[in-house]
Amino acid sequence: MTHITETIDQLNARLARREITREALVAKALEEATGKAAKSVFTKLYPEAAMAAARSADAAQAAGVSLPALAGLPVSIKDLYGVAGETTMSGSIVCEGEPVQPVDSVAVARLRASGSAIIGKTNMTEFAFSGVGINPHYGTPVNPTDTKVARIPGGSSSGAGVSVALGLAVAGLGSDTGGSIRIPAAVHGLVGFKSTQSRVPLTGALELSRSLDTVCAMTRSVQDCLTVDAVLSGAMLRVRRRPLAGMRFAVPQTVVLDAMEPAVAKAFARTLSTLSAAGALIVDIPLAELAEIPKINAPGGLSPIEAYAEHHARLAKASDKFDHRVAQRIMLGSSVTAQQYIALLDGRRDWIARVEKAIESYDAVLCPTIPIIAPEIAALEASDEAFFKANGLLLRNTFAFNFLDGCSFSVPCHQGDELPMGLMISSVNGDDARLASVALAVESTLGR
Amino acid sequence: MTHITETIDQLNARLARREITREALVAKALEEATGKAAKSVFTKLYPEAAMAAARSADAAQAAGVSLPALAGLPVSIKDLYGVAGETTMSGSIVCEGEPVQPVDSVAVARLRASGSAIIGKTNMTEFAFSGVGINPHYGTPVNPTDTKVARIPGGSSSGAGVSVALGLAVAGLGSDTGGSIRIPAAVHGLVGFKSTQSRVPLTGALELSRSLDTVCAMTRSVQDCLTVDAVLSGAMLRVRRRPLAGMRFAVPQTVVLDAMEPAVAKAFARTLSTLSAAGALIVDIPLAELAEIPKINAPGGLSPIEAYAEHHARLAKASDKFDHRVAQRIMLGSSVTAQQYIALLDGRRDWIARVEKAIESYDAVLCPTIPIIAPEIAALEASDEAFFKANGLLLRNTFAFNFLDGCSFSVPCHQGDELPMGLMISSVNGDDARLASVALAVESTLGR
Repeated sequence: MTHITETIDQLNARLARREITREALVAKALEEATGKAAKSVFTKLYPEAAMAAARSADAAQAAGVSLPALAGLPVSIKDLYGVAGETTMSGSIVCEGEPVQPVDSVAVARLRASGSAIIGKTNMTEFAFSGVGINPHYGTPVNPTDTKVARIPGGSSSGAGVSVALGLAVAGLGSDTGGSIRIPAAVHGLVGFKSTQSRVPLTGALELSRSLDTVCAMTRSVQDCLTVDAVLSGAMLRVRRRPLAGMRFAVPQTVVLDAMEPAVAKAFARTLSTLSAAGALIVDIPLAELAEIPKINAPGGLSPIEAYAEHHARLAKASDKFDHRVAQRIMLGSSVTAQQYIALLDGRRDWIARVEKAIESYDAVLCPTIPIIAPEIAALEASDEAFFKANGLLLRNTFAFNFLDGCSFSVPCHQGDELPMGLMISSVNGDDARLASVALAVESTLGR
Repeated sequence: MTHITETIDQLNARLARREITREALVAKALEEATGKAAKSVFTKLYPEAAMAAARSADAAQAAGVSLPALAGLPVSIKDLYGVAGETTMSGSIVCEGEPVQPVDSVAVARLRASGSAIIGKTNMTEFAFSGVGINPHYGTPVNPTDTKVARIPGGSSSGAGVSVALGLAVAGLGSDTGGSIRIPAAVHGLVGFKSTQSRVPLTGALELSRSLDTVCAMTRSVQDCLTVDAVLSGAMLRVRRRPLAGMRFAVPQTVVLDAMEPAVAKAFARTLSTLSAAGALIVDIPLAELAEIPKINAPGGLSPIEAYAEHHARLAKASDKFDHRVAQRIMLGSSVTAQQYIALLDGRRDWIARVEKAIESYDAVLCPTIPIIAPEIAALEASDEAFFKANGLLLRNTFAFNFLDGCSFSVPCHQGDELPMGLMISSVNGDDARLASVALAVESTLGR
């Protein structure tokens, strides 16, 4: 049973008409957060603070105060964001006993300042280091979109995705280093917006990769993502509402269309047809640069190198407490030299310049967010090989736009009784406002 | 025989009165640049282009055009700045045969756009990697301020310093990674301004340390430095002229006063007395953080790590062509891991925050630019031990403010027949405009 099904604007309209109260919304969300469907979704709940925020917003509305969009609405925060007085666990048990955070992380502080009701901290892939969402310490949240089979929630913002999909939050604050917002968005039929990294300070969040970590959220609509982005970034994007007709989209023919499951290929082709019929110009481009990413990232890769710098002391002390799959990936960064790291940063910069040039004449780049349907949890828990293969496929397309230091939306593109799938709409660094107008037009054209 | 002895403003006043012409100034500078005193100062001269710039400015003045400050005036550029169509040598012979620069470096392009007459490229420490100024490939420029003994010109902007000291240029474009503008300024009785690193793009310059390299210049006065900074940065500092009385200066008691030669100790004490008598408040502070720098920089150090990333291929191919002392220092970065490098960057950031806090209530930090008088060239050429000891002392004080990512002036503080010595006036990141007003007041109080 899904609690909240409306967008933030729709909810606020109902609240303004006094059809519901924020207090009731948040109370129900808190109640369901302890229910069976939400098992392993939250690692911590904040009932008193959340209820207080909801009641305060209700009271302010009753007093005639004009409220900001998130006032009193339930949101969830990923376990890697520092909260004053708590040790940040980041989906792990390794950090137990580490010092508590002296102050809230910037993202949490800004959400609090928005008046939102932070209902709890959400479970995640340990240290945010995989796109699958399996967590051996706190359990794996189950994707609620398939009622027959237990499928993965996607990672690393797994609990964030389920919290929104179950309607327990209007937005799930997560992070996106290689796809960790867009992957759960895609497998839950939600919208994920990975903004340009520099839009929101990382201050107070536990790092995976300083070069890539992006503070962002998933929601039910593109507009909701923009509403939350304005809070997180402190700077509302100036988005022009433009028609889809005449927009120019590039569809790369390298890597991102490989190994598509038939259902994804079908949904993607249908989506392109719909956009084309609505007047968008769809152009196949080679973008052969996409095939270079693994080579530039070898040896080690940005995330393992930077994660090892963050976690090497924890690994030295308690490697047995890590999810062994996460430890294995972090250890890829252990023997990388400073020279190799600097060469990687330079190689990335050069690659970015070439890709920016290759796509500069398009409004956005389109591809499937992930080439597969959410796999079943059991199969990936059982086999490291199956896990790493799925992890690679889940992260492959999304990561390309983290590596680009760009911005990227995932919007739902499934229909009827298809399982959720995402269309990824991406652009270059700093192009967030223009990309948002594209995402709004695409979402509207796809009939959502 | 010194050619130009006036500041840029004084020269422009004489030019406006038509007492001299830019053509004559530049012709004389070019002539003397090939003379004995300027031996090893230039690695390349640009007689045609420099004369053309001078004549063009003279003609423009004759036509009634209002000219920018550097128009037609001779300036020199350090050998590490890219010039279109040339291979950048950077004081080395290792780069022979490498591709030519497709376009001018940003600094050179901005100097050209200012109308200045770029008379030539100046010699330097190989790859800018020492504070001494000895160069085994192109010879060592001799410091002209001591007529009896051949003393070092200071490095790494050695030729830049001598070019200005000999009056062949109104400004020597150099770079400051660990003191390479301020050290030659100090030993030549000139003013050196190491601005906040981010003020001027490094684009097109051969890197020593991407974290530290600063594009800046030395001149005859603080105002001249500001004039050149406005050209290099494209953004004139808004400097308020303020009296010295009431300014608060901190004098750190850790490290920077150690091992002072008696002449330096005497000049420094006298300088503080003069400033104090003029109404400045001088406060001794511990600033014990200064003793941490070597520990944070171990292993390797920022410059060796980043220089190794730049030069490892050249070292692998032709290590025998390097100045062995430079190669030795770069190799310190060869075995550093990415994790150690990231830890160093984090350690630096933490250190900066603590030092910024410790000095936040002062207008500037004062100390001797270098604790010794310029050593004799012969002694340092003869002994690696003497060389590295002197190099350490030359760079010790200046480097602290590179490590701070701050801004820093060296202004002359010697008197009468003392050999040149510098007072270093330093502050935190981005405080350039306020620091400039301090430097102007100090310079004026010291009677220059």
